[in-house]
Amino acid sequence: MTDNVKNLERKNAGYVSSFDKGSLALPPAKKYLVVTCMDARIDPAAAFGIDLGDAHVIRNAGGNAKDSLRSILISQHLLGTREIILVKHTGCGMLTFQNSDALAAVAKSQGVGVLAGTYDFQPFSDLEQGVKDDVTWLKSHSAIVQDTAVSGWVYEVETGKTRRVV
Amino acid sequence: MTDNVKNLERKNAGYVSSFDKGSLALPPAKKYLVVTCMDARIDPAAAFGIDLGDAHVIRNAGGNAKDSLRSILISQHLLGTREIILVKHTGCGMLTFQNSDALAAVAKSQGVGVLAGTYDFQPFSDLEQGVKDDVTWLKSHSAIVQDTAVSGWVYEVETGKTRRVV
Repeated sequence: MTDNVKNLERKNAGYVSSFDKGSLALPPAKKYLVVTCMDARIDPAAAFGIDLGDAHVIRNAGGNAKDSLRSILISQHLLGTREIILVKHTGCGMLTFQNSDALAAVAKSQGVGVLAGTYDFQPFSDLEQGVKDDVTWLKSHSAIVQDTAVSGWVYEVETGKTRRVV
Repeated sequence: MTDNVKNLERKNAGYVSSFDKGSLALPPAKKYLVVTCMDARIDPAAAFGIDLGDAHVIRNAGGNAKDSLRSILISQHLLGTREIILVKHTGCGMLTFQNSDALAAVAKSQGVGVLAGTYDFQPFSDLEQGVKDDVTWLKSHSAIVQDTAVSGWVYEVETGKTRRVV
């Protein structure tokens, strides 16, 4: 058993002892979803004020809209959400490398050819433009519900502040 | 401004006022990543005991390993994580529909043809088998670091309890 597994078991026991939200419904009560980064410095529930049961939270490298499509469509078409709040953040790892760097790192560790040379890690070079581009992509996607409210934000890992971009 | 945006701005102001974690490093301090579902009833930080800065958290519909690959590879090969904790949960929406149901729902709302008929929403029919299958897939993927510790869990939305499957 790893230290991280021990930590999970110990802290989960504490969570269970005071848990009283066992009757929440499956569909998000506030009918919105949040897309944000997997970054370890982001706690979406605390930083964005999401109460348990209120919103879907999708997280991946970069808070990437395209990578979230399957989840967004399920959230919208099967579970009724009608608003998307997309949050990227300062100091994002995705701003620090090129696609070729990531391909080289995988090849060095695992061998050449385990990923196609065309594999796209989807790094980006400008934070605010990245937010705008993802919001534009979501608003124009034909499978996303037309009247969905979509907003784009930046979370500052240095201050905890979330500011709206678009 | 939507009610959900107002809620974010109001609660984030409170978060900022007591924020004191502005100097955390980019790579996860505890070198692990968690893959879990976007479900609104899961608060990974609280339920799984993840302190800010300690772990990457990837979330999507179903806590789906395949859909997380890009993020996992970045987490491992660029940011040094060496352990994966995958958590699916009771009452998951992904257990409640077939792929054809999801395709039909999108077509009904947005029109036939906005998604290819082969689009795979990746529902699954058995919770514990789904956990096992994803762990097996991760352990056998040639681009994932060989000695990665991978464990599979079920979170019970009714009790808050997380129990290990594999």
